[in-house]
Amino acid sequence: MDFNSMSIELHKKHKGKIEVCSKVKVEDSVDLSVAYTPGVAQPCREIAEKKEMVYEYTSKGNLVAVVSDGTAVLGLGDIGPEAAIPVMEGKAILFKEFGDVDAFPICLSTKDVDEIVKAVKLMEPVFGGINLEDISAPRCFEIEKRLKEELDIPVFHDDQHGTAIVVAAGLINALKLTGKKLEDMEAVINGTGSAGIAIGKLLLNMGIKNIVFCEKKGAIYEGAEGINWAQEEVAKLSNTHNEKGTLAEVLRGKDVFIGVSGPGVVSVEMVKSMNKDAIVFAMANPTPEIMPELAREGGALIIGTGRSDFPNQVNNVLAFPGIFRGALDVRASEINEEMKIAAAYAIANTISEDELEPEYILPKAFDKRVAKNVAGAVMEAARKTGVARI
Amino acid sequence: MDFNSMSIELHKKHKGKIEVCSKVKVEDSVDLSVAYTPGVAQPCREIAEKKEMVYEYTSKGNLVAVVSDGTAVLGLGDIGPEAAIPVMEGKAILFKEFGDVDAFPICLSTKDVDEIVKAVKLMEPVFGGINLEDISAPRCFEIEKRLKEELDIPVFHDDQHGTAIVVAAGLINALKLTGKKLEDMEAVINGTGSAGIAIGKLLLNMGIKNIVFCEKKGAIYEGAEGINWAQEEVAKLSNTHNEKGTLAEVLRGKDVFIGVSGPGVVSVEMVKSMNKDAIVFAMANPTPEIMPELAREGGALIIGTGRSDFPNQVNNVLAFPGIFRGALDVRASEINEEMKIAAAYAIANTISEDELEPEYILPKAFDKRVAKNVAGAVMEAARKTGVARI
Repeated sequence: MDFNSMSIELHKKHKGKIEVCSKVKVEDSVDLSVAYTPGVAQPCREIAEKKEMVYEYTSKGNLVAVVSDGTAVLGLGDIGPEAAIPVMEGKAILFKEFGDVDAFPICLSTKDVDEIVKAVKLMEPVFGGINLEDISAPRCFEIEKRLKEELDIPVFHDDQHGTAIVVAAGLINALKLTGKKLEDMEAVINGTGSAGIAIGKLLLNMGIKNIVFCEKKGAIYEGAEGINWAQEEVAKLSNTHNEKGTLAEVLRGKDVFIGVSGPGVVSVEMVKSMNKDAIVFAMANPTPEIMPELAREGGALIIGTGRSDFPNQVNNVLAFPGIFRGALDVRASEINEEMKIAAAYAIANTISEDELEPEYILPKAFDKRVAKNVAGAVMEAARKTGVARI
Repeated sequence: MDFNSMSIELHKKHKGKIEVCSKVKVEDSVDLSVAYTPGVAQPCREIAEKKEMVYEYTSKGNLVAVVSDGTAVLGLGDIGPEAAIPVMEGKAILFKEFGDVDAFPICLSTKDVDEIVKAVKLMEPVFGGINLEDISAPRCFEIEKRLKEELDIPVFHDDQHGTAIVVAAGLINALKLTGKKLEDMEAVINGTGSAGIAIGKLLLNMGIKNIVFCEKKGAIYEGAEGINWAQEEVAKLSNTHNEKGTLAEVLRGKDVFIGVSGPGVVSVEMVKSMNKDAIVFAMANPTPEIMPELAREGGALIIGTGRSDFPNQVNNVLAFPGIFRGALDVRASEINEEMKIAAAYAIANTISEDELEPEYILPKAFDKRVAKNVAGAVMEAARKTGVARI
C-alpha cells in the first residue's frame, strides 16, 4: 500500500487530525450560565483559594503537551516546528485512542534550550504532563533534565524512554526464551542519539552486565575524542573492559545487538561472530541495520525491528499511553526509573509464557491489554516510590 | 437557580470541559501507518518544503489559542493562571459551539509582558489565531500591540474588541430606533480598563462626535495627573471640549452612557440630566452601574446590561466566534478595524427593522444566525482591506 499518498489524502481531507471538543453541552442560557459566566466564577474562586483544586475543576489532570522543536522528526531530521505538527498530532490521537489521555501538540519555533525550557515552564498551569518528542540529541537530554527539575508535573521524552522501555520489554521476554539472565548479558548499542543512550541507561539500571556503545567511528570509551558530553557520560557508566574498535570488532562475543542507527550496518558475518542465540534489535527505520532474514542466517534467535511488517515490532505505542495514563491517575510528580522498569515488565508480561515464542516477544500495537497493564504497574511503582500524590 | 453550585457540580463531574479528540479513526495497523508512521512522513516533508502547506495538512487553520495570565478574570481580578482555566475552557467550548473553531486554553504562569509575548510567539506554529483573554490593563494593550506586530496570524483581545463590537452593534440599532446619527452623538464611557478604552476607540473610528472617558476620580483629559499611558492616549483622541469634573457633571447633556465600571455609580438623577431618549449601557457585572428599571425611571429609552436576565445583553459570544470563523476562513493576517466594524453592523443587522424594539436591540446569545452573518461580513472586510490570504 502507498502509505505516503494515503496519508496526504487523509491529512488534506480532514485538515489535520485533532479537534478540541466540549465535554459538556451548551444548548441554552442555563447551560451557558453554568459552564461559563456567571457560574464559572465559583470553580475559579475555589482554585484561587486552593491551587490543587485545578485538578478537580479543569482538564489539567488528563492533559499532556506533546512538545517538539522539530529538530529530529522521524528519520527526516531538522524539518522545523510546522513540519513536525503532523507527527505531534498523530501522537496526540494515539494518546487518546490507546490511553484515553488528552494530548495537545506544542511545536515551538526555537531551538534554544533556555527558550524551550522557559516556554514549557510558562504553560505548565494547563497541563498534567509533558511529553517531549523529536528533539535532537544532546539538547533533548538537557531540556528533559531541566524541565524535570523545574516542573511539578511528569516530564517524559518518549524518543528516549518510550523506546528504551519497549526494548527492555523485548529483552525480558527474549531472555525467558533463551533461559539467560540479564546480569550475564553483554550488549552493543549502535547509535548514541536520544534512544540509544536511554536504552543503555535503562538496561544498566535493570542490571545488565555490560554495554558497549558505538557511533559511526566505532566504540565510544572514556576519554575518546570528539564525543559529546552525553556520550562521555554513558562511556563512564558502561564499556567495563574499555573496548575500542569498530562495530564489527566489538560485536564479537556479545549476546545482544541493539541498533538505533542506520540501514545495513550489520552483516551476516557480524551476527555470526556474536554468542549463540544472539538477540538482535535492528530498529533503524525504514531499513533496519540488518534485515531479519539475514540476521537469522547469522544465527540470531530473536530479532526485533521498528517495522510493523516484521515480527517483534518495537513500537512506542506499547509504552507511552499506559505510562501517562498511570502517572496521571495517581497525579505522579515524575516518571522515575522504577516506573519505567515496571512498565517494561508489564509490557513483557502481557504475553503469557505459553504464548511466548521467538517471533512473538512483544505484544501487537493494538493489543488493548497492554496500556491497562502498563498503567496499573506504573501506578503501583509510583506509589511505592512515593511520587504518587493521590 | 444557584449557578455557582451547579457549576461546581458540572466541573467536578467532568473534570474540566474540554477534550482533545481525533478527527480520524485509528483502529488497525493500516490506519496507524496512514495517520502516523510511516505515512505521516509525507505531509511532514511537504510542509518542510513549503511552509503554507501546514494549513492543508494540520489543524492549525482552525485552531485558536485562548491566552491568559489570569490577571483580570471576570470580576475576580488577579486570581492566577490556574484559577483562570475554567473561564478559558469555557471560552474554548463557546468557540466550538458557536463558531466551529477549535480553541485551546493557554494559561501562562507569568505577568511579565516580554515573557508573555515571547511564549505566544514561540507557539505560533500550531495556531491559526490568538485570542487574548482576561489580561489586566494597561499590560493587555502592549501585549496585543506587540503580538500583532510580531505574529503572522490574527491576534484579538476579546475583552477589548469583542465587547467594543457588541456595544457598537447595540448602539447602531439604538440609533435606528431613536432616529439619531452617530456623528451627532456625545457619549460618556465610565471605566478605562481594556473594554472601556476599546469601546471608545471603536466608536471614534465609526464616527461618533465626542466621548468623555471617566475613571474613579472623574473625567480624564489631556495632561490629567495620575493617568496611565493608555488613558493619556485616549484623552488625546476624545473629550473635544476638554471637560473636567465628576461623572455626574460630565454626563449632563450627553446622549449615551457606557459603563464598564462598578455597581450603582449612576443615579436616576444622573440619567435625567442626559439628553432625551438617552441610551444607557450599564455593563458592570453582576450588578450594573444602574439597574434597568431605575435607568428607565430616569428617562432612558434604550438600556443594555451584561446580564442574561435583562433585555439587551451585551454578550461577547455574539462577536468572537463569528469573527474568528471569518478570519480563519480567509486566513486573514490580522483582525483590523474594518473587520471589527463590519462585525458590529452584521450583529446589528441580524435583527430586522421590523423586529427591532427598545428591548430587542441585540440578538440573543443562541441566535444561530449571528455567527454566520458576522463571519461573512468579516471575510468580506478582510478581502476588501487586503488582509485575506486565500
